[in-house]
Amino acid sequence: MSKFKTLIRLNTPVNIISSSSVVGNREVEGPLGKFFDITLSDDRFGMKTYEQAESQMVKMSCESTLNKCKYTYGDIDLIIGGDLQNQCVGHSFAVADSNSQYMGIYGACSSMAQGLVLSSLLIDSGHFSNILTSASSHFSTSERQFRFPLEYGLQRTPTSQTTVTGAGSFILSSNIPSDIKVTSALIGIITDRGIKDANNMGAAMACAALDTLQRYFAQSDNKESDFDLILTGDLGIEGASIVRETCHTYSLSLGDNYKDCGELIFDSEKQCVFSGGSGCGCSAVVLASYVMELLKKREIKRVLFVGTGALLSSGSVLQKMSIPGIAHLVEIVRS
Amino acid sequence: MSKFKTLIRLNTPVNIISSSSVVGNREVEGPLGKFFDITLSDDRFGMKTYEQAESQMVKMSCESTLNKCKYTYGDIDLIIGGDLQNQCVGHSFAVADSNSQYMGIYGACSSMAQGLVLSSLLIDSGHFSNILTSASSHFSTSERQFRFPLEYGLQRTPTSQTTVTGAGSFILSSNIPSDIKVTSALIGIITDRGIKDANNMGAAMACAALDTLQRYFAQSDNKESDFDLILTGDLGIEGASIVRETCHTYSLSLGDNYKDCGELIFDSEKQCVFSGGSGCGCSAVVLASYVMELLKKREIKRVLFVGTGALLSSGSVLQKMSIPGIAHLVEIVRS
Repeated sequence: MSKFKTLIRLNTPVNIISSSSVVGNREVEGPLGKFFDITLSDDRFGMKTYEQAESQMVKMSCESTLNKCKYTYGDIDLIIGGDLQNQCVGHSFAVADSNSQYMGIYGACSSMAQGLVLSSLLIDSGHFSNILTSASSHFSTSERQFRFPLEYGLQRTPTSQTTVTGAGSFILSSNIPSDIKVTSALIGIITDRGIKDANNMGAAMACAALDTLQRYFAQSDNKESDFDLILTGDLGIEGASIVRETCHTYSLSLGDNYKDCGELIFDSEKQCVFSGGSGCGCSAVVLASYVMELLKKREIKRVLFVGTGALLSSGSVLQKMSIPGIAHLVEIVRS
Repeated sequence: MSKFKTLIRLNTPVNIISSSSVVGNREVEGPLGKFFDITLSDDRFGMKTYEQAESQMVKMSCESTLNKCKYTYGDIDLIIGGDLQNQCVGHSFAVADSNSQYMGIYGACSSMAQGLVLSSLLIDSGHFSNILTSASSHFSTSERQFRFPLEYGLQRTPTSQTTVTGAGSFILSSNIPSDIKVTSALIGIITDRGIKDANNMGAAMACAALDTLQRYFAQSDNKESDFDLILTGDLGIEGASIVRETCHTYSLSLGDNYKDCGELIFDSEKQCVFSGGSGCGCSAVVLASYVMELLKKREIKRVLFVGTGALLSSGSVLQKMSIPGIAHLVEIVRS
């Protein structure tokens, strides 16, 4: 195996200097509601279409993140972004008038983690000092793109997840100090266990999360208990329970410090969300708001964030293809 | 403006140690036919669907590129890939059994250039020594996804381009020497001139190409005439003619050394291709085969490759959104 197929310890830990989250009304009614920066009660956000609403949400999240550290787009060397819309147009339209260098990524619901991994590595290269990275999803754009028109009133299965309406973004920097830093990163390897049920993406992604966590702990001096929070995003209730039940077969010992963004964002008993949250926006807003707040308040100091993605399209599901999963990891430490 | 929003000169030029191309039968009948590595005469390549055929093509291209430098997937630190299929599933399925670290990117038809930029920067970071980067498109998957079912026999407009069936890939390396190197990179900024005609993507992308070229020459000591080849990919006949006609307004002086992959790949008089080739695979296979061959034979020594992408989806077109464009650049030099 190539020696580089391993955990990357950054030469210089990369500062997370700002983050922000924008969510819809269902998300703000959930247990983490008070942590989000901006909420809009209307699914359209005053735009003509849900798709434009998602772009608007990304814009607002990026601008809020910039404002928090008194930056403008002119201070940013590069924007890295991804969403679930076909051809990632959510971000294309969101950043089209930013006059910023831009790279689109696609990692399905792992996009926030992929963006953080990539931003950290690029800053560590010395060629960039400030990178804005963003991920988003929107319930209504996803429903009609991946499933059925909203008006159809589809009956859901218990293992199906609810796409989060949300956009989260981070600014990573080499030249502005911060007590919160990305210290290492691990890029995911696609796992495919032959799962074909698009209403059980948690199962498809759980193996990817376990695989990445196993690779991390096999190469790191850290133990699971060294972390205040090991956070997957977003397996939902079904996927997270698979992780808890099978982690020992991956030589992993996950305890109460293991959580999943898809479980945290909604109250599954009170809110009609089936197996919890999903979508690029889910882990993006949970990390950008709740987790960052806990880090700032020193309630937690060490976080392993494992973004998980289900690599399907509505076409691949109709063609009865399996659902490969991927999980990218970043280690975030508060000094 | 941030000092990093500029041309990046790599600390150590990155070696291009291998490249390969797989194309369909229309492509092999074009003027560059003899340069391609693998041709398959059937659009399905023995697979059940066009989409699976595209994944198979990507696999074949990656394996051919690996074979050429006597590598296996085990020697590769990271695969970076992109295609036009919704949620980039073409590459997800192609690399699912490679057991390699993978990052999906989306830059529309600029994906090959984006992959080369990113691979070069990541290798220059010192965290990777061998990266495989790939891009693909398939006429039949694109037609039915972006336009109409093939059986419909749609009449095309003269400015419409023909999606290339092709997959191209490169291995970039820091530890294996090569006379052909990437020396610098420039990341694109999205331009949006309000063009809404999805049958004239060349026009939508031409401004992005011009903008990136203008940024390059404004920051570089090089003149246009210092290059044996300034290659956009893929504006097609219409887009390339816009570049030629308007380049002086961008303070650019492009002569006979300016070519476009979409013009080169087909014989527009003999082949029914309207405004020439398009799709991620177009610039990928032209660069991986024809241009690399000219570099190897020392017929050319300095190349500016400007991959151009039209950031639309079939949904954004139906919603009457404009078509933003982006263009990423790499400078390739043969010593």
